[in-house]
Amino acid sequence: MATGSDLTDTGAAAGQGPGVVLSVDAMGGDRGPAAVVAGLARAAAAHPDVSFILHGDEAALAPLVGRRRALAGRCTIRHAPRVVTMEDRPSQVMRHGEGTSMWSCIESVKQGEATVAVSCGNTGALMAVSMIRLRKLPGVNRPAIACLWPSRNPTGFNVMLDVGADIKAEAPDLLQYATMGASYARNGLGLARPRVGLLNVGTEEHKGRAELKEANEMLAAGAEAGNFSYHGFVEGGDIPGDRVDVIVTDGFTGNIALKTGEGTAKLISDFLREAFNATFLSKIAALLALTSLKRLQKRIDPRRVNGGVFLGLNGTVVKSHGAADATGVAAAIRLAYLLAKSGFQDRLAARVASAGAAGQDAAGLGALNGNLE
Amino acid sequence: MATGSDLTDTGAAAGQGPGVVLSVDAMGGDRGPAAVVAGLARAAAAHPDVSFILHGDEAALAPLVGRRRALAGRCTIRHAPRVVTMEDRPSQVMRHGEGTSMWSCIESVKQGEATVAVSCGNTGALMAVSMIRLRKLPGVNRPAIACLWPSRNPTGFNVMLDVGADIKAEAPDLLQYATMGASYARNGLGLARPRVGLLNVGTEEHKGRAELKEANEMLAAGAEAGNFSYHGFVEGGDIPGDRVDVIVTDGFTGNIALKTGEGTAKLISDFLREAFNATFLSKIAALLALTSLKRLQKRIDPRRVNGGVFLGLNGTVVKSHGAADATGVAAAIRLAYLLAKSGFQDRLAARVASAGAAGQDAAGLGALNGNLE
Repeated sequence: MATGSDLTDTGAAAGQGPGVVLSVDAMGGDRGPAAVVAGLARAAAAHPDVSFILHGDEAALAPLVGRRRALAGRCTIRHAPRVVTMEDRPSQVMRHGEGTSMWSCIESVKQGEATVAVSCGNTGALMAVSMIRLRKLPGVNRPAIACLWPSRNPTGFNVMLDVGADIKAEAPDLLQYATMGASYARNGLGLARPRVGLLNVGTEEHKGRAELKEANEMLAAGAEAGNFSYHGFVEGGDIPGDRVDVIVTDGFTGNIALKTGEGTAKLISDFLREAFNATFLSKIAALLALTSLKRLQKRIDPRRVNGGVFLGLNGTVVKSHGAADATGVAAAIRLAYLLAKSGFQDRLAARVASAGAAGQDAAGLGALNGNLE
Repeated sequence: MATGSDLTDTGAAAGQGPGVVLSVDAMGGDRGPAAVVAGLARAAAAHPDVSFILHGDEAALAPLVGRRRALAGRCTIRHAPRVVTMEDRPSQVMRHGEGTSMWSCIESVKQGEATVAVSCGNTGALMAVSMIRLRKLPGVNRPAIACLWPSRNPTGFNVMLDVGADIKAEAPDLLQYATMGASYARNGLGLARPRVGLLNVGTEEHKGRAELKEANEMLAAGAEAGNFSYHGFVEGGDIPGDRVDVIVTDGFTGNIALKTGEGTAKLISDFLREAFNATFLSKIAALLALTSLKRLQKRIDPRRVNGGVFLGLNGTVVKSHGAADATGVAAAIRLAYLLAKSGFQDRLAARVASAGAAGQDAAGLGALNGNLE
């Protein structure tokens, strides 16, 4: 059984060479290629060993890139004549997506030219193209999208998955989400042994749907092989809490929780702005408190945690928010850079393989016990 | 087909007499009976025509009530020797709950002594006791718990249901939730024709689970009979938004969304407090902005919207938050008072009955069309 850390030798990974190459889809975001290129320039300035393959309309991209000194000699433009829009159906893009910047972006990871792909485009289409081109990791049934969530934990963040790759998840899928989410938390948040919770409507063992009770037992049994500590059921209030580091749920529930949390945060921040604009005195107060308010804003700014990560494929894909501006794109690029640098993809693959083997051992043992009884 | 408003003659309802009688469970909340009695006193001062039947340990309650002048002559204590705890299983309470303050509280509504019941106790147990004593309204398959959610709408609130009565809901249940939630929004928020949305992971018609696609069609067809305007699918971000007034979902998803929203709001308000305590300057700023911050706090204070309402039973039950203090209890009592005063229970029953009849008509018509085709 594999119980060691994920810090195995991954010298062969693309990200461990002299520099990190990221594949970036320049099109398909709500703010167009200018925001993407501006984000790249910021990331390039922050990380001297990163370079980019940028996919999209060459005529539009060349002048944008040319204007950024930070990108000089570090950004190859790969022409793609077509764009996937937010309205395109994933099934259509999967069949007829060749020639789009999104397809081309994923292709660079498939061909090994780049370690991680980044796109602001249509989530469903991006997952569909990633699935068909990169294929699922051996042993993975359902890939998942993991997001980072502002939390009370010392790292400032929790990991939640799945937030929308698939609307369904059976108990074995939830165990794989736990294994993959824990690996992401080790590599993305630097936690040696992440605490994992299973999202439910109560913390008592008798609560919730049948598949959750089954998953509860599987996660408890699979914690050692997955190198995580299993905490049992958690509730919606624990997603931004400090009880666990990784929250596991199906993509339907996770997506609704994510958007509810974002919507609530936006409502409060708008109300806060209105409150400070209400009177002359409150405007002066806002000026005095500017530094404090900026600190608050930074802690809950959704742009800082921009980047859902697709887990469970033969390649890592970072999905940036469709409405991301330069700050948001730079955050997504930073996340992609960190994951590439840490050799995350190989570690994740190794962890999934060893957890799967441990699961088979356990299943074999269970059958044996069954025979003995 | 019934398309009129809910403002039918309900003169016979208990709440339309000279005064409103509410049945209140004094025990089972996290802060004990003192918080409940303090909340009653506030509500009694605000509403001169309300009186209470208070259920619980008489020896503990008598001195608490005796000390509150506002309650003099307006609060009958009904002794109940036992208390339902937060740890008790609903199934146990359902079988062996007689003699508890919760059981006694529901009994007063069943016997017609009081119009609405209020309890801070164990939600699952309260629903179980309510189900077994009050029984479901004719035609209702799954009762639901509706909550109010701070929103961008002019009323300041949206209605969401189910937030935890049942972890499952089929398409016809979701249609009933829409009908009941719209009736609640008319009577609780004063909206003539509430806009209803069905919670999903996207707004496109092809998205989501099979039962949601089916429910989407049923809600569109049932909008007229239910006297609501159907908006189609909405996302998590619309729960605090202004696109719809009523958000319909199953109790699993609704409960997780509710707790995620509460947890997120709590996280931000704690971060805000920390931000204002960070420096000397920020503390002065907080003092200057006190009125504005209080206004903000009031808009998002969960105690103001304290009270989930059980819909679909032969009697109205308000579930106050377990941790409610006097302010929270007073808010739950106020809600119960408003619903009693408006004759809500009879209106809801009439609406469910007429929507059910319209549904049968439509089904009959469908069968007829089927024959003609």
